[in-house]
Amino acid sequence: MEIDDLIAQPGEWLSGEGPESDIVISTRLRLARNIKGFPFVSRATREHKSKILAHITGRLRKSALGKQLVFFNLHEAEAVDRLFLVERHLISKEHANSEGERSVAFEPAEVRSIMINEEDHLRIQVLKSGFATTEAYEEVSGLDDLIESQLDYAFSPRYGYLTACPTNAGTGMRVSIMFHLPALVMTRQIEKVFQAVSKIHLAVRGLFGEGTQASGDFYQISNQVTLGVSENEILDKVRKVVPKIIEYERNIRETISHESKKTIEDRVWRALGTLQSARSIQSEETLNLLSQVRLGVNMKLISNLPIQTVNELFIQSQPAHIQKLEGKILEEEERDIARAAFLRKRLN
Amino acid sequence: MEIDDLIAQPGEWLSGEGPESDIVISTRLRLARNIKGFPFVSRATREHKSKILAHITGRLRKSALGKQLVFFNLHEAEAVDRLFLVERHLISKEHANSEGERSVAFEPAEVRSIMINEEDHLRIQVLKSGFATTEAYEEVSGLDDLIESQLDYAFSPRYGYLTACPTNAGTGMRVSIMFHLPALVMTRQIEKVFQAVSKIHLAVRGLFGEGTQASGDFYQISNQVTLGVSENEILDKVRKVVPKIIEYERNIRETISHESKKTIEDRVWRALGTLQSARSIQSEETLNLLSQVRLGVNMKLISNLPIQTVNELFIQSQPAHIQKLEGKILEEEERDIARAAFLRKRLN
Repeated sequence: MEIDDLIAQPGEWLSGEGPESDIVISTRLRLARNIKGFPFVSRATREHKSKILAHITGRLRKSALGKQLVFFNLHEAEAVDRLFLVERHLISKEHANSEGERSVAFEPAEVRSIMINEEDHLRIQVLKSGFATTEAYEEVSGLDDLIESQLDYAFSPRYGYLTACPTNAGTGMRVSIMFHLPALVMTRQIEKVFQAVSKIHLAVRGLFGEGTQASGDFYQISNQVTLGVSENEILDKVRKVVPKIIEYERNIRETISHESKKTIEDRVWRALGTLQSARSIQSEETLNLLSQVRLGVNMKLISNLPIQTVNELFIQSQPAHIQKLEGKILEEEERDIARAAFLRKRLN
Repeated sequence: MEIDDLIAQPGEWLSGEGPESDIVISTRLRLARNIKGFPFVSRATREHKSKILAHITGRLRKSALGKQLVFFNLHEAEAVDRLFLVERHLISKEHANSEGERSVAFEPAEVRSIMINEEDHLRIQVLKSGFATTEAYEEVSGLDDLIESQLDYAFSPRYGYLTACPTNAGTGMRVSIMFHLPALVMTRQIEKVFQAVSKIHLAVRGLFGEGTQASGDFYQISNQVTLGVSENEILDKVRKVVPKIIEYERNIRETISHESKKTIEDRVWRALGTLQSARSIQSEETLNLLSQVRLGVNMKLISNLPIQTVNELFIQSQPAHIQKLEGKILEEEERDIARAAFLRKRLN
């Protein structure tokens, strides 16, 4: 399988079929793991990194999962391919832009993936559609066990899994819920959610994780503490707060669908009209208009447009995707024109 | 013929078939005339007005044109019907909103019309598509002769036709050219046109004449002086300046079609997309978007959309037209919804 084969086939997590997926786009579970006998990536030389990558890749290939995984070396990849993987949420921005030998291994369905030589030797990730912490945890645990059967993890009976950054030690687990909260944003109540969430030590981030801005009314909520708590305690905290945010967003949608149906209807249709008509459109504007359209589909104001299409367009309209779809590197202005043409084709 | 019959059948001057009609919407020629033996309208009592109207109407009905004219009494009309006639440029706002017995007589094609008891006893008007001063002048002169054969005009050998306001005396003629100048507005060069035009004592007005704002990049240019000059001198002045404005607008369109084709293409298609999609839209926004679309059609960036349709929509999307089309009086919010539905139907 080549990386270009991914373009036409979006990750399973974009199906929009998971629980509560009108509001929860995805549940992401990732485990930070390191291998005994090697320095952490931050302290590793080029040679160390090379050896770590070879060691891990060799073992993964031999595992029961070996044949299903696509291995992709980032240090040998074009910038556009690395950005493409960021846009698909298969790797982090840091992983795309760092130095030295590093890789990502993933299943074609893009549910399970493993970053090698990111901040830790291993970042094991499961990405599911909707609010699915139990399924995601089961899958990531199974993947963790399978990898552990091949590799010796750095583990301390006192501190748990050892990680390059102490904030990830202990369970090494981060659970991230990606929300689509257009009604909370529109009615300017999103700040209340942030305040409530940060009080219980959960972090709020944008569409592409740590250090990114919220676009298209997408917000990720994730645990900040991994040490001194069990995996189940982390999951329970998230499981308690997520339904409240869902309910809050859903109530506002219900209210506006009664009190200002005409206004919201106008807004979502105009957004769709612009996406169907523009001859040049930037990434940021696309995200914001798609967000309105997604709300319109979920509020049943727009019909005949599958939610999966809308979900896919959020990813496929990103800069690297547009360039992969066109099969060449494009300047920003050319991308905006190609993006508009692509959106027209998909939405008309 | 009932006034409601006009709705489906727009005035001939909207055909978009006149000379230079990509830039000149219409040529309007009006003559101010008063009848000997009656006080001016501004000094007339209710009884006077009633007598003037009866006198003029009686004579017009007997004239060769009598059978072709539709007579419509404004003092007996609903507010929505009066506004409807303003929107069609058959009467002025002042004529719609003033007091006492007053009327309008017009041909079903809406080229020739006569306001009775506006500021003067008679305001004789010819409205033609495009830049057509010669044809318009011939038609209005013919109409003037025909009316003069039935009525005794107040005329002074020294001052010419006597009018209620001295600024209209002499020829009593005003020629108004309605321009569509989106490229001059877009490139912020329209002010230069105004300055040049006012230096030679021509007035610039908005879409609905005296005292109205420019909307949708429409500007009317007309002579200010009617006294001490002949009809041909007035026409010659206008005939000299209009081609310069046309050339100026056309040159800018040519320049932007080379230098910023993608930007302008995006702009006009987005305007069309919004008009095709909105679920609620105000009059002013509609005018401005239609202006972009009109530019797009004339620059051949949008095809499959007849210019006549766009011209008609400028008129038909106005408040009274929307209410006539719906067959009932509507609140502003209801009108905006009905307008959006009407635009979608016509443009999709």
